[in-house]
Amino acid sequence: MTIRKGEDFSEWYNEAVLKADLVDFASTKGFMFIKPYGYAIWENIQKALDGRLKEMGHKNAYAPAVIPEKLLSKEAEHVKGFAPECFYITHSGNRKLHEKLVLRPTSETIIYESYAKWVRSWRDLPLLLNYWNSVFRAEIKMTKLFLRTCEFLWQEGHTVHETGEKADKEVMDILGIYRWLVEEWLAIPVVAGRKSENEKFAGALYTTALEALMPDGRALQMGTSHNLGTNFSKAFGITFLDREEKKQYAWQTSWGVSTRMIGALVMVHGDDKGLVLPPKIAPVQSVIVPIVFEKEKEGVLEEARKLHAKLAKRFRVELDDREGYTAGWKFNHWELKGVPVRIEIGPKDIKNKQVVFARRDTGEKVQIKMENIENELDKLLEKMQKDMFARAKRFLNENIVTAKNFEECRKAIENRKIVRVEWGNDPKAEEEIKEKTGATIRIIPFDEKPSGKCFYTGKKAEVIAYFAKAY
Amino acid sequence: MTIRKGEDFSEWYNEAVLKADLVDFASTKGFMFIKPYGYAIWENIQKALDGRLKEMGHKNAYAPAVIPEKLLSKEAEHVKGFAPECFYITHSGNRKLHEKLVLRPTSETIIYESYAKWVRSWRDLPLLLNYWNSVFRAEIKMTKLFLRTCEFLWQEGHTVHETGEKADKEVMDILGIYRWLVEEWLAIPVVAGRKSENEKFAGALYTTALEALMPDGRALQMGTSHNLGTNFSKAFGITFLDREEKKQYAWQTSWGVSTRMIGALVMVHGDDKGLVLPPKIAPVQSVIVPIVFEKEKEGVLEEARKLHAKLAKRFRVELDDREGYTAGWKFNHWELKGVPVRIEIGPKDIKNKQVVFARRDTGEKVQIKMENIENELDKLLEKMQKDMFARAKRFLNENIVTAKNFEECRKAIENRKIVRVEWGNDPKAEEEIKEKTGATIRIIPFDEKPSGKCFYTGKKAEVIAYFAKAY
Repeated sequence: MTIRKGEDFSEWYNEAVLKADLVDFASTKGFMFIKPYGYAIWENIQKALDGRLKEMGHKNAYAPAVIPEKLLSKEAEHVKGFAPECFYITHSGNRKLHEKLVLRPTSETIIYESYAKWVRSWRDLPLLLNYWNSVFRAEIKMTKLFLRTCEFLWQEGHTVHETGEKADKEVMDILGIYRWLVEEWLAIPVVAGRKSENEKFAGALYTTALEALMPDGRALQMGTSHNLGTNFSKAFGITFLDREEKKQYAWQTSWGVSTRMIGALVMVHGDDKGLVLPPKIAPVQSVIVPIVFEKEKEGVLEEARKLHAKLAKRFRVELDDREGYTAGWKFNHWELKGVPVRIEIGPKDIKNKQVVFARRDTGEKVQIKMENIENELDKLLEKMQKDMFARAKRFLNENIVTAKNFEECRKAIENRKIVRVEWGNDPKAEEEIKEKTGATIRIIPFDEKPSGKCFYTGKKAEVIAYFAKAY
Repeated sequence: MTIRKGEDFSEWYNEAVLKADLVDFASTKGFMFIKPYGYAIWENIQKALDGRLKEMGHKNAYAPAVIPEKLLSKEAEHVKGFAPECFYITHSGNRKLHEKLVLRPTSETIIYESYAKWVRSWRDLPLLLNYWNSVFRAEIKMTKLFLRTCEFLWQEGHTVHETGEKADKEVMDILGIYRWLVEEWLAIPVVAGRKSENEKFAGALYTTALEALMPDGRALQMGTSHNLGTNFSKAFGITFLDREEKKQYAWQTSWGVSTRMIGALVMVHGDDKGLVLPPKIAPVQSVIVPIVFEKEKEGVLEEARKLHAKLAKRFRVELDDREGYTAGWKFNHWELKGVPVRIEIGPKDIKNKQVVFARRDTGEKVQIKMENIENELDKLLEKMQKDMFARAKRFLNENIVTAKNFEECRKAIENRKIVRVEWGNDPKAEEEIKEKTGATIRIIPFDEKPSGKCFYTGKKAEVIAYFAKAY
């Protein structure tokens, strides 16, 4: 790494994701090529989340990536929100298409057109489907790998329910699972709540979200879960006969998390040596680096191979026995990639029936007896996962500040804080604050109640709001 | 099912895939919506194949779905093969794009442009990457679900090697894995070999493939594995310094299997009652249907639930305890979906500590003692998997016939056979035969040697060829 995280955060980020080999700029302008190491993180995320969603009764399906333009227009708010950033397909071969097609920016419209055919009776509900795919947004601003690209990977859940209460419950259950994924697996603490009217999903009744704080003071949305009410079911005609044989419009939810999370993972945990990956999500949890000198080479390599075979039964572990590279070069290489625990094994260690564990997050080194190695590694990985979360949690807590008036708010935003305020819920005031400070309401927390006056308008506060600049 | 397989095969197929709820026509013309039951089969295929590919050292990655048009044109044969069926993106929002973009019909070009940056030295090789995604082909002919749609799911492998021999080995190793997947998991027997020059992949040095025979006498390609030679590495500048520090063009392979396989699964094994799924790939391996009469209802349901909990530890098993449906209706429902083994449990069975197993493929029913149920189910599923393959294998063998002259060949094609001939390898003759019979060379088998004269031209035969009509 040539750039320090504290000096030029944005450039540090680019260098970190590229040098760790997570991702590359693709030959299509604005698009990314997710390399094996980055994709392996995504696979670990998928595995954890997919399992939980299936336990809850969700099933996976696949809807077309290509949507007739007229479908996109069926829900008025929705098309207004997405049309400006859509890619349009106009030709196939050398023939002009009869109707323009759109690359999915999100799949509500194409999916709900089919749901309208499939849903007939309350017996068909709830319909709990999830879709792993990629979506397309024509981004005009500069590409930022994982965070702002013209295509990214995600999952989108689309469910149908009999009542508003059941849809509410689904929205909150999913947000709970997302929180578990982000906090327990990615070790990234979040604040949770509703979005303001200005910030909610185009077409939703209300939007809930998780927001994490990046080291540069910007909030990054880690997941959203929307109650769509009956807005889409009315536009698409999704009706069912209820238990009293009466025709009803169905209630719907949609929700998603994306490869943006990998960007947050890098930003929150990385340091001047590169990535630091939480053990639960790391593609490689531990790397064994043999320390070889010409004389004892074969003996050390043999012990290292035995150790690798033993640990591979329980952990995601690599042995770096490449020739032509020094141990120092290898240390550097695996530090860049953020591997949680490096295991060093040399002639002396073998004599003493021990190895050295080096922790990626703290740099700490300890000698470990060979006989205890599996349990010790397990314990260290677990501890590191917890410590990384605790460290990030402290950072988050220290950077949420309360502002009593606009001047305090402005200064806090300048100082890269999340600002907690009593809020009158006035969309116009929200626009003004955005213009003056660049900050928007990231969330309105679920469980905090206001007690006084709006910090900006002086009218009665209706809710607590968290303002911050956002990615 | 209202249509019989033997009466109108094509209509039977449509009814079978729709009624089993595998897939539906999407609202985008020519596209399919893969429903949860169809997608679950794909997930089982993915799991089996992905595991084997990773064991071999392959890693997954993700390349953009959108390719600059000029990239597609870099390899002359390749663009000629694909351009006519490409979808073209010309606008984003209301702005016209500076350069036309293409939805990936296959990803050689976009991937190799990046490989040219990544590959520098023999130390970077082999590069063994695989991509799970979807591809787009503007199909003009009538949509056929799973077999001919404008988008389908697949995996595409793209590897880079030091030498032609290593690329040859990769091509054959992959074809071996595909054969294992198709024969051992899908229970579909195949013939394997090379493609003729006319039929090879656009841009490849040579193509190998697996072909299965459908009941209507058409061959369906189940997987292909190409040696691309240095055709693409020359077009894209993929070079490396070899072990002697000399610059070399790299050798490449690409290979894929797709959701077409699910279409074959339906065609080969299905019957007049609907799908018949091989146990290893079936989303539901066994369904428990309680036979309830009002009096003993609760007791039977309780036993059925206990049984379900027990079997769910080892099998993919469902309990159909829905109210308001008769047992007969449920039998029908699960037969349509091709569930391998139905387990019936009623008051009498409970008294006798037994259940009834009903095999989907043969309809055979047997009584099974409750105490042996897990092992008996395991044995039956295994037997059914083998029996289904054996039955399909007999069909394949009986329908490969040898033709000594064109008249015999023509008749055999008319009679829906795969025709084995001694072949002079003349592309013009191949074209003529295609025009006259509609059949093409499906494969040139690897291990069969010619001994006489070409059945068509009378010149010396160079190879054995298998002709058939194809999907």
